[in-house]
Amino acid sequence: MNGTMRLNAFTMNCVGHQSPGLWTHPRDRTAEYVTLRYWTDLARVLEDGLFDGVFLADVLGVYDVYAGTADAALRRATQVPANDPLLVIPAMAAVTEHLGFGVTVNLSYEPVVPFARRMSTLDHLTGGRMGWNVVTGYLDSAARAAGRPAQAAHDDRYDVAEDYMAAAYKLWEGSWADDAVLRDRGAGVYARPDRVRAVSHPGPHHPLHAIHLSEPSPQRTPVLYQAGSSPRGRAFAGRHAECVFVSGPSPQAVAPRVAAIRALAAEQGRTVVVFAMLTAILGETEAAARDKHAGYRDHVSHEGALALMSGWTGVDLSAYALDEPIRYVENDAGRSAMENITRADPARSWTVRDVAEHVAIGGIGPVLVGTPATVADGMEAWIDATGADGFNLASVVAHETFADVARLLVPELQRRGRYKRRYDPGTLRHKLFGAGPRLREPHPAAAFRFDASVSVVPAHP
Amino acid sequence: MNGTMRLNAFTMNCVGHQSPGLWTHPRDRTAEYVTLRYWTDLARVLEDGLFDGVFLADVLGVYDVYAGTADAALRRATQVPANDPLLVIPAMAAVTEHLGFGVTVNLSYEPVVPFARRMSTLDHLTGGRMGWNVVTGYLDSAARAAGRPAQAAHDDRYDVAEDYMAAAYKLWEGSWADDAVLRDRGAGVYARPDRVRAVSHPGPHHPLHAIHLSEPSPQRTPVLYQAGSSPRGRAFAGRHAECVFVSGPSPQAVAPRVAAIRALAAEQGRTVVVFAMLTAILGETEAAARDKHAGYRDHVSHEGALALMSGWTGVDLSAYALDEPIRYVENDAGRSAMENITRADPARSWTVRDVAEHVAIGGIGPVLVGTPATVADGMEAWIDATGADGFNLASVVAHETFADVARLLVPELQRRGRYKRRYDPGTLRHKLFGAGPRLREPHPAAAFRFDASVSVVPAHP
Repeated sequence: MNGTMRLNAFTMNCVGHQSPGLWTHPRDRTAEYVTLRYWTDLARVLEDGLFDGVFLADVLGVYDVYAGTADAALRRATQVPANDPLLVIPAMAAVTEHLGFGVTVNLSYEPVVPFARRMSTLDHLTGGRMGWNVVTGYLDSAARAAGRPAQAAHDDRYDVAEDYMAAAYKLWEGSWADDAVLRDRGAGVYARPDRVRAVSHPGPHHPLHAIHLSEPSPQRTPVLYQAGSSPRGRAFAGRHAECVFVSGPSPQAVAPRVAAIRALAAEQGRTVVVFAMLTAILGETEAAARDKHAGYRDHVSHEGALALMSGWTGVDLSAYALDEPIRYVENDAGRSAMENITRADPARSWTVRDVAEHVAIGGIGPVLVGTPATVADGMEAWIDATGADGFNLASVVAHETFADVARLLVPELQRRGRYKRRYDPGTLRHKLFGAGPRLREPHPAAAFRFDASVSVVPAHP
Repeated sequence: MNGTMRLNAFTMNCVGHQSPGLWTHPRDRTAEYVTLRYWTDLARVLEDGLFDGVFLADVLGVYDVYAGTADAALRRATQVPANDPLLVIPAMAAVTEHLGFGVTVNLSYEPVVPFARRMSTLDHLTGGRMGWNVVTGYLDSAARAAGRPAQAAHDDRYDVAEDYMAAAYKLWEGSWADDAVLRDRGAGVYARPDRVRAVSHPGPHHPLHAIHLSEPSPQRTPVLYQAGSSPRGRAFAGRHAECVFVSGPSPQAVAPRVAAIRALAAEQGRTVVVFAMLTAILGETEAAARDKHAGYRDHVSHEGALALMSGWTGVDLSAYALDEPIRYVENDAGRSAMENITRADPARSWTVRDVAEHVAIGGIGPVLVGTPATVADGMEAWIDATGADGFNLASVVAHETFADVARLLVPELQRRGRYKRRYDPGTLRHKLFGAGPRLREPHPAAAFRFDASVSVVPAHP
């Protein structure tokens, strides 16, 4: 590992990820998200900036809590339309060498065997640059899309997730031994059958009996990301996650979350890399940066932002006038999400409009506006105050936000010795942790590694 | 449409597709299938040869009928390992402009909503070049991988398939009106909510209630391919397929199949494009072509070929000595598949070894070996005798087989006026049928198109 601060680019295969309305900005390119060129251009911008990775969010439903319909989300392109995130990775990988790829896949709606093969295929094609953000979803619309009346209860979803992880680990780690593939042209032997086995998983949720269809990829299990903030979600992250995303409005709000997740991982004998959500708006001068920020604000969609917030909180914000003060929230999830906004300035009297404008640029995280020196100061202070390892940087205007980081901020961080000057060689996992491509003990995946001392399970049960 | 003969390249994201053992040939590159370069090189070869499309086969299980284990398949790389076919398409699309992409996805193991989004995403990224080969699978090992004791019965799988198609058509054709997307930056309106609706499908097998997450792609429904040869499979193809793959050892065997599928489509008021399986081995002279063929034969794996045949037929061919004559088969599927081989020369006395060597180069289709003139003569004769529209060309040595077609055969076919000299503009469907990007009446998908006269289904059921 070299340098100290990790930078990750946060985006989504859609028009409006976390900056509702900004697609209308004349310099914004997100409406080109359906083209390959949009993604290959983004990949080149990020690798020029030595970003550790690009992170693709995803949803499998629509935001329909606001006014009880998806109308506002459709009108403002609030995460709908939203295309598949995996399918832009091969094209981005073809034009880069080092950039990592994190991708959200909701395990509630993908059968294990084909999903595990997709991740292995991508790990092969990218040369070991894949990460998976494990999510269980939060939209009832996604459950209805799958023909279910609603989502499973929150903690039940984590029971299903534990079962899913065990099944996936068996496929990735346990089906092929490291020395299974000979690729011996002279002998005509591709793989050694005695070093490949069908793995069995009894369920309860994801029973399977299968030889993993992919031969061993560089990392086997992709680098595991998690962002859960509930007690059960944090326990899951403490057990499985290698990288954790946190978001909050202030260092005071974020620091205890970082400490909590580190403590949970430490209980398992593990360390995690923590990325804090942040938005950087950069200019050559303070005035230029402020002008840029003001220009962005002119394109905020209040309706789009409230559709997003309503989906996150479960509270229908269409019931309130824009200038009404935020007075109360109706449920725990809503309170937590709303407090994530208003704690940015607890002394202020927040209106619904204020919340919308705050969310539309920067989401739940801080927004740093200024010269490279000012923003770098702010980021260093955040790292020092929270103990995070780096930032999950949000995009406001694509690809301008990330290009500004690469062009203006990265050289400043490098001068300060806070950022790498070149990529390390190796897989994404090795770049992040410096200890090779594979998961090791005490991570639970390591317990599923192919072990010659275990008797071979027959292909037929 | 220009030219007359259609050419499609048949391959798979694996080491040994239909030429077991040929990966050991010194010029063969299939062992590089895990790299992006392998696929982008292939795409360039095919577009240089004006191929209509590349077709990616797939399986979700292993070949374990031979000797009751997957050992032979693993040793000889007979369709295992096998990576996901969709994920190589974006990289191939990035380096081509016209090449079509057909991909096998087994609907028995993929939930409708995420699958439909994947195909829409690819149709966007490729600019309308996607096709889907609808299959229901034939390997019990794939069912076990999914935690089921065995596959559903053959005809039941087609009942499930009909239900799946209806659900997918609703998402692709019925959720967004043609004029739903405004992308109006000035007004801040991306889509018109009154022109987007949640579609409902009651099941019985694939119930859903969803707004399709992808905005309309160029073709909406991908071009539909089918290869079923059973009575139920042909009826399904007559109803749904736009392109049909047929394979057989002789024009006499194939001609009635072509006639039958055309008759079934005609009953529905439709026409289909028929591709016949064929292998072309080309040389500048007859002797050079024969030498090349002999060199290929030296690399055949008998065991790998018999593992493939055992999987196709359900008959464990390990029970027979290589020089034993083919005497009988144990079941209908086996008889049909085996006869597909031996009818290539019914007068001959076939041994198990003969079948293996026959299958390993050319599969169930004919092998034409010779100069461009000889092979073109043979192809013209096949077209004339069978009524097929073109060929699904198998690969023997990658990418040599297809590069030879592009370099040697295509100019000869062009001189004869039997092949296009340039690509037509437009989507894959338009290139094939010359009538625009969309499916039309009387195809069943057209009945699901968004109709403003239908009252809007609310987002919540």
